[in-house]
Amino acid sequence: MAYKKINKKDVEILRSICGNDRVFYGDEINEDFGRDELAEIKRMPEVLVEPQCTKEVSKVMKYAYENNIPITPRGQGTGLVGGSVAIHGGIMLNMSKMNKILELDEENLTLTVEPGVLLMEISKFVEEHDLLYPPDPGEKSATIAGNINTNAGGMRAVKYGVTRDYVRGLEVVLPNGEIMEIGGKVVKNSSGYSFKDLIVGSEGTLGVVTKAILRLVPLPKKTLSLLIPFKDLETAIETVPKIIKSKAIPTAIEFMVRDTIIAAEEFLGKQFPDNSSSAYLLLTFDGNSKEEVERAYETVAHICLQEGALDVYISETQERQEAIWSARGAFLEAIKASTTEIDECDVVVPRNKVAEFIKYTDELQHQFNIRIRSFGHAGDGNLHVYILRDDLSEEEWKNQLNEVMDCMYKRAKELRGQVSGEHGIGFAKKNFLNDSLGGSYLELMKGIKSVFDPKNILNPGKVCQ
Amino acid sequence: MAYKKINKKDVEILRSICGNDRVFYGDEINEDFGRDELAEIKRMPEVLVEPQCTKEVSKVMKYAYENNIPITPRGQGTGLVGGSVAIHGGIMLNMSKMNKILELDEENLTLTVEPGVLLMEISKFVEEHDLLYPPDPGEKSATIAGNINTNAGGMRAVKYGVTRDYVRGLEVVLPNGEIMEIGGKVVKNSSGYSFKDLIVGSEGTLGVVTKAILRLVPLPKKTLSLLIPFKDLETAIETVPKIIKSKAIPTAIEFMVRDTIIAAEEFLGKQFPDNSSSAYLLLTFDGNSKEEVERAYETVAHICLQEGALDVYISETQERQEAIWSARGAFLEAIKASTTEIDECDVVVPRNKVAEFIKYTDELQHQFNIRIRSFGHAGDGNLHVYILRDDLSEEEWKNQLNEVMDCMYKRAKELRGQVSGEHGIGFAKKNFLNDSLGGSYLELMKGIKSVFDPKNILNPGKVCQ
Repeated sequence: MAYKKINKKDVEILRSICGNDRVFYGDEINEDFGRDELAEIKRMPEVLVEPQCTKEVSKVMKYAYENNIPITPRGQGTGLVGGSVAIHGGIMLNMSKMNKILELDEENLTLTVEPGVLLMEISKFVEEHDLLYPPDPGEKSATIAGNINTNAGGMRAVKYGVTRDYVRGLEVVLPNGEIMEIGGKVVKNSSGYSFKDLIVGSEGTLGVVTKAILRLVPLPKKTLSLLIPFKDLETAIETVPKIIKSKAIPTAIEFMVRDTIIAAEEFLGKQFPDNSSSAYLLLTFDGNSKEEVERAYETVAHICLQEGALDVYISETQERQEAIWSARGAFLEAIKASTTEIDECDVVVPRNKVAEFIKYTDELQHQFNIRIRSFGHAGDGNLHVYILRDDLSEEEWKNQLNEVMDCMYKRAKELRGQVSGEHGIGFAKKNFLNDSLGGSYLELMKGIKSVFDPKNILNPGKVCQ
Repeated sequence: MAYKKINKKDVEILRSICGNDRVFYGDEINEDFGRDELAEIKRMPEVLVEPQCTKEVSKVMKYAYENNIPITPRGQGTGLVGGSVAIHGGIMLNMSKMNKILELDEENLTLTVEPGVLLMEISKFVEEHDLLYPPDPGEKSATIAGNINTNAGGMRAVKYGVTRDYVRGLEVVLPNGEIMEIGGKVVKNSSGYSFKDLIVGSEGTLGVVTKAILRLVPLPKKTLSLLIPFKDLETAIETVPKIIKSKAIPTAIEFMVRDTIIAAEEFLGKQFPDNSSSAYLLLTFDGNSKEEVERAYETVAHICLQEGALDVYISETQERQEAIWSARGAFLEAIKASTTEIDECDVVVPRNKVAEFIKYTDELQHQFNIRIRSFGHAGDGNLHVYILRDDLSEEEWKNQLNEVMDCMYKRAKELRGQVSGEHGIGFAKKNFLNDSLGGSYLELMKGIKSVFDPKNILNPGKVCQ
């Protein structure tokens, strides 16, 4: 389908909807809006619009729909798979200016927010009210709607689940401009097909999220982190299913290797509490009393030592825990800074297959003579594996990357894993999704996309197209 | 669309797929298969088939698809809205014979089951392994696939969430007979639109569940129940948002009134621990230590007494707790046994609107001079309200019932509630769903239904049609 190109008349109309100072055309658009965090996929939108309310989103969408103009919603652009890149040009909706926290309802334990509120703002706000919004992805400057659209998981999924589990209601603008309320503050809902769950994880292809009602939980009174060194990564990771089997449920179980820690130390200019061992597990526990947390971590520390851990470092103070976790939060940036270009693979496999997968990526490193760095969520099976370009030529890089990626996604499928644990499919991972799920699944997805967006104007060319 | 009527040749072919002794035709079919638990909607299937494996389901489905025969999946028939009644005749798939527990995976904390395994079998099996499958609907003899199809919630939703939150993967037979694997043992998943969540709660209209991978959690070591009498229901229910706001999270908060308790005592022939007060809250707490559970219940007991509770009865032993909860589990049967016919309303409202809604049903009771009984999940806002026919004539009953239902669903919508918290829409609640969600939502649902089932053969006439 041929899309309409934006002309000055379109810009005038968009300005009449949103005001002169919130519509940017051509060269007025900052280059950042032409890419996401990985910058692998690039394309500038023709016009950038910054709506301030749902009605404006609705009007812009209606105009795009009636005039066959592609329209791409974007939050903070922290994605890694090109999901928020306007690959067909057209209108970009910068949703990050709709960024108000609208209501904290302590009787229903919900927080109502606009789409552009940042994750770090949400956690700060609710924690001041002794509440917790459990999803905790590494990228704290992402918007909540970005998290909803990728169904982001983060560190605490082991105990608390993912973004999907904390969305109770949504307000969404459909491709034709209609505003739809979905779900609400209700705890249960069996009233027709769950559009809430269809929108969560749909990467802005079915509707534009303009409001979200989030579920909160009481803030645990006590948290504690364990940093546990191992002689090698395999031993570390093979301990995780034993922890799960022991029925102690940590809040988070991350794995990391010395190379990554050193890169983070250099990047942040700060020392990590220990970097003498080649691999580590980092665990967090939370609960409402010292005894409860202690009981859980003692069991786990015991298992780790039995399985060959070299030591167990306990961090009880908030400062020490923040030091460790801020290093963990900087891993991606640190790896990026250590090379010329990177690409990533965000597969999720059953928890007891993580060791096997990581061992395989190590083999690939040697087989293809390319640097591969990984870290991730050992406790929930979601791995973040980065392939580093270093000094490869453009052609070598593309070829090597494709082959390595192919190998990794194939192995993930063999292990009954999925293409993406939390970063989504966007533009970059479409072929791998197709290979993984198969034709019928893709056809059904395309069918659903057509039901919501018959003119294919909303974030076209993503996920299943 | 005109469906094909079943003839002897069809029966022969179905017998060649499933064997002679698992295909029942015409008068051979037990009358139970013509209705569900409420028996309000009645229609016999033309042929009843009892598949024993996914391949048989697939072959039967393919035959139905190719020959334009309606096909209705059914578990134990414990539904209340006609969802499993073959309202267009055709084939009924009795899925309750596929009832094996296939695998407990303690490293991934998952249980893989066939669709016909009963809820009570699952809880018994996993508890023997020190694990818990948290969803806990009152009807323990329902099948797991029935629970998945209605996204059943049950008592423990306050703390643990609903069935949706405990389904990790599904095997589904699509209307054209194709077998599709969805999700898996993975904890996170952002790989395309979530068909897992689309199937959960779709009431057998998009695909037939032939296998499910369920998420388990460690069994809490300690549970305790509180039975708290109040002078009236309003005082009892108005206490609940205060409990939630206190950040103590009970596992369950149920409300009940004396009339219902007395009906249950008569029905079971057993005494309830107390029936001297007009209203009660029943709460459960769980945790891993006595101290943890005690700390939580003491806070809550204190709040209740402050808000006017007359006493606090603590049940710590398993026997005492079972006595109370088995009475709770018999409420629906007891109400049914106390009159000639009943119909129900299963709305869910925000937790702080429950008192208002219950007060309104009491007004309706006087306004329409009809008996209304309710109990339900005060902690999650999901109410089970029953309208009793008593000695009304058929015509009076239908008229009164329609008006009362209309009033209740209207008020639920005003309170920003939803039509069904956990029983689903089936056949009986379609008009109310339409009124509640509006035309566009329904059109999108119909669109999705067409994508999965273009010939509209799978459980036709339900939910959105």
